Amino acid sequence: MVPTQADVLEAAEWLAGRVVRTPVVSSAELDQQAGGRRLWLKAENLQRSGSYKFRGAMRSVGRLAERGCPGVIAQSTGNHAIAIALAAREHGMLATAVLPVDAPRTKIELAEAYGARIMLAGHTVEERLIAVRGLTRETGQVAVDAYDHPDVICGQATAALELLDEVARQGSRLSTVVVPVGGGGGVAGTCLAVQGLDVAVYGVEPEGCDSMARSLEQGRPISVVPQPTVADGLRPARVGDLPFEIVRKGIAGVVRVTDAEIERAMRLALWHAKLLVEPSAAAALAGALRLAEDQPGDIGVLLTGGNVDPAVVSRVLNVEAGVVG
Amino acid sequence: MVPTQADVLEAAEWLAGRVVRTPVVSSAELDQQAGGRRLWLKAENLQRSGSYKFRGAMRSVGRLAERGCPGVIAQSTGNHAIAIALAAREHGMLATAVLPVDAPRTKIELAEAYGARIMLAGHTVEERLIAVRGLTRETGQVAVDAYDHPDVICGQATAALELLDEVARQGSRLSTVVVPVGGGGGVAGTCLAVQGLDVAVYGVEPEGCDSMARSLEQGRPISVVPQPTVADGLRPARVGDLPFEIVRKGIAGVVRVTDAEIERAMRLALWHAKLLVEPSAAAALAGALRLAEDQPGDIGVLLTGGNVDPAVVSRVLNVEAGVVG
Repeated sequence: MVPTQADVLEAAEWLAGRVVRTPVVSSAELDQQAGGRRLWLKAENLQRSGSYKFRGAMRSVGRLAERGCPGVIAQSTGNHAIAIALAAREHGMLATAVLPVDAPRTKIELAEAYGARIMLAGHTVEERLIAVRGLTRETGQVAVDAYDHPDVICGQATAALELLDEVARQGSRLSTVVVPVGGGGGVAGTCLAVQGLDVAVYGVEPEGCDSMARSLEQGRPISVVPQPTVADGLRPARVGDLPFEIVRKGIAGVVRVTDAEIERAMRLALWHAKLLVEPSAAAALAGALRLAEDQPGDIGVLLTGGNVDPAVVSRVLNVEAGVVG
Repeated sequence: MVPTQADVLEAAEWLAGRVVRTPVVSSAELDQQAGGRRLWLKAENLQRSGSYKFRGAMRSVGRLAERGCPGVIAQSTGNHAIAIALAAREHGMLATAVLPVDAPRTKIELAEAYGARIMLAGHTVEERLIAVRGLTRETGQVAVDAYDHPDVICGQATAALELLDEVARQGSRLSTVVVPVGGGGGVAGTCLAVQGLDVAVYGVEPEGCDSMARSLEQGRPISVVPQPTVADGLRPARVGDLPFEIVRKGIAGVVRVTDAEIERAMRLALWHAKLLVEPSAAAALAGALRLAEDQPGDIGVLLTGGNVDPAVVSRVLNVEAGVVG
């Protein structure tokens, strides 16, 4: 069933007090980098579990807990599984996290720290889904999809809702919201959140991991062979059916960014906004900087998470050690 | 004239809307590092100009502007001068920033970017004060001291006020607030802010830059020969007379921390709270981690700023590249 804006509002009400209402951060220096456009950064790297995925995880696990479900299984490149692990712990439920063998060490350790049983399964989402099916049969636990799930989409949507709300509270309004795209749950939620408002939603994908852009071109979900990217959270081969159904009607466009742009955005977020964001979140900032070149008005940027390996940060900083930007 | 809590409240009212009400950030992982004590981080690295010094700068420059003062001169190790530069620009006033020759490049560039005339004068506060006296005579502009100034103290105090307010709003209360000590303006303001509440204020100084600790021991302001420290903002040789007058009556104690503890705290803030803080701010977190060992209750930490050279961040991260903590 395709969720609606009413479902998003209901999720927001339920999640209030259960998730952090993360701050919206601005930086005059960053706005300069955007040609004077005002950027509003929704700092979901400060969310519990280190990413906005905790919103959808709490919402979906909370509902399963109400129905007496004993445990949950989550496969993802990292943040969804981490978020499910923490949400399950909050509800006294068991959790199994199925991650790719090349997931960032930080992400594996976080899922483990939150008490999840860890299973590493191949490199692709297909390999992980096979593992999930086996576990579901074996344990009777319920799998929570990372994006093809109405509660997950509605949960992620609440980040955009809070962003819009905070900008309005400060007497401004957004003309654009920019969201990184992996499986499409966050961007689908954002499309629901802005419904009825004059706000353009843009997705951002790494070059070569552009399932959403290609799917929109073709009018149906298209698989790609994901190319290597520093944005480890944006590698799904194919966007979800449910997100695609929502996104096709609500999105203004998709921006493709390079790893070099993503890494530069990580540095800009750090030096100017003083925020550590993971590459997948920095992709949104990179996309916003591109859009700022020819879009008027204020731009909201969903900085989706901050779970990044120290070694990646060192490498990204050392590329231009001593140089800001 | 020694400012009072009433002056702090007046400053807070005037500054509302002129400064960022910065978020208070928590991290379950950081609390674990503090032995389960709850840490509340006041993220003044997200303040305009990159540090909480903007509060005192806006308050003092705002008052000078009302009196028709054409320009201001500020000497400091960096953040006060940067903050004065931005505050002056906001009021259409000229500003001259007198900085040590070894100030972080980031800080010199920021003061310049905000339109200040830059003068580099020696290494010590005495050398800078000689330069300030010359400039005052030459230009007729007014010098705003970095800490020995009631408006500056009252301005800095508002950060602690907001921290107390936010923690209360979230249904908790602080037993301790920890503040880094350079010239003592911030810790003096914090003592005023908590007056009448059962909250212990602790200052933190780098080993060998412990003018406040020694002054408290002797009962009068004592000069030290500042030893080298990574915390470039905490190097004044002597605390201010006015801050000392307030602090001696209100402080619970001073913690001395090593550079190794400061750099570790920078890493913890980055990996767990996802915040880039400068070494002087990390000193407060290092002090809080020490205090957590034998103080019960929730601890508020004033993360005073985030203006740090990329090269310093790279070095601090590379010490233990790949290792969290």
